Amino acid sequence: MLQNIRIILINTFHPGNIGSAARAMKTMGLIDLCLVSPKRFPASEANSMAAGALDVLEKARLFDTLDEAIADCSLVIGTSARTRTHSFSRPMLSAEQCAAQLLSESRQSPVALVFGQETMGLTNSELEKCHFHTSIDANPDYPVLNVASAIQILCYEIHKASLKSDCADNNEKPEQEYPLIKELELFYEHLETTLTDIDFIIQQHPGLVMTRLRRFFNRARPEVKELNMLRGILVAAQKTAKKNS
Amino acid sequence: MLQNIRIILINTFHPGNIGSAARAMKTMGLIDLCLVSPKRFPASEANSMAAGALDVLEKARLFDTLDEAIADCSLVIGTSARTRTHSFSRPMLSAEQCAAQLLSESRQSPVALVFGQETMGLTNSELEKCHFHTSIDANPDYPVLNVASAIQILCYEIHKASLKSDCADNNEKPEQEYPLIKELELFYEHLETTLTDIDFIIQQHPGLVMTRLRRFFNRARPEVKELNMLRGILVAAQKTAKKNS
Repeated sequence: MLQNIRIILINTFHPGNIGSAARAMKTMGLIDLCLVSPKRFPASEANSMAAGALDVLEKARLFDTLDEAIADCSLVIGTSARTRTHSFSRPMLSAEQCAAQLLSESRQSPVALVFGQETMGLTNSELEKCHFHTSIDANPDYPVLNVASAIQILCYEIHKASLKSDCADNNEKPEQEYPLIKELELFYEHLETTLTDIDFIIQQHPGLVMTRLRRFFNRARPEVKELNMLRGILVAAQKTAKKNS
Repeated sequence: MLQNIRIILINTFHPGNIGSAARAMKTMGLIDLCLVSPKRFPASEANSMAAGALDVLEKARLFDTLDEAIADCSLVIGTSARTRTHSFSRPMLSAEQCAAQLLSESRQSPVALVFGQETMGLTNSELEKCHFHTSIDANPDYPVLNVASAIQILCYEIHKASLKSDCADNNEKPEQEYPLIKELELFYEHLETTLTDIDFIIQQHPGLVMTRLRRFFNRARPEVKELNMLRGILVAAQKTAKKNS
């Protein structure tokens, strides 16, 4: 399901890189390009670098925030240079594992692969929104791929994975079914309201509670059934709070 | 033996692509760049696209012909778009197979991966000098990778193969030992002389004989021992010719 695999570029500085991304995607059969607050788009440099992939560029969608761009996705993978030290841990996938995971889950809903700004990469807060991180194995002395090259390699691995999967005629659904990001957001809202109802969060001093809880649930990745169960628990907690108020 | 794997670019039109090639190579641990008659080099566009890989660019060697650039290599693989129809057949390797073959044979002598001019690719006569052809699996409706992207993907596959080979600690030599291109060239000279000595080739009308023989031997890929044996046969034939003259 290559059409369900979305490439998201955040805050792209050089419009030419957007064109190169479109071309790299089309050479590997991908068509869904989303741009979060690019510096300049549409732009002639983007068109000229896209070459025969102008159709991908023309269909590209613009968003103000990453949250909006991933709202209907069930899986989000962020790209990162391996050398970066994180203050939090996420499973790190190789490019090959990343491709297999995206392809497998794209059978039931859109999935996203996210690239950060050219020189800075993804910020910590963007990386926290991702279920997994991926990094391209490279020369440890000079792992500095430009963003167009990184997109080309990852799209190539996705295409290779799709050929393998075609060969295996492997059409069964993945075992777990995961909620969409927008469903998770509704859960977080519900969680925050409930925690306020039960006075765990004091409205004037919310502190870091929700940030920490989001980090935890994002890493734990609840399945649809588990999320429904959690929602049930919240409803019960809210009922209890109302009775006692 | 990544340092024994040579990337050769022929008649490059845009100097920026030479810089991108150097960067792509260095990110994957390759350092040996050879340029055959580039349109313009050195060039500022090459330097700026090379970014942190200026050292690879500065060590790049210039050649007038492909023959000179591959003379000390034992294996030459040419890149090609799968769609091209050839008047001759060569084994076609996937990018992954190409990487494994280059890496395996690079343990004993230099090996080369050759890229043609940006829009035209390798000419038929250049492709004929190659033992194998390789093509990157891509979208059949738009398989148009730019040369920098193609170099990036193939260098990435080579780097991946080298990591695998490190893991397996696989240090045995490949089973066959192949002659260098310059040794083959000496054989072809010897062959032509001998065929002239025995009047198979008439000096005024050489015809296509040598072209066809080169094509045959290049495809057959004689090992060192076999080439020595063939040289022995030629010596014997020449002795016979002299006796009878």
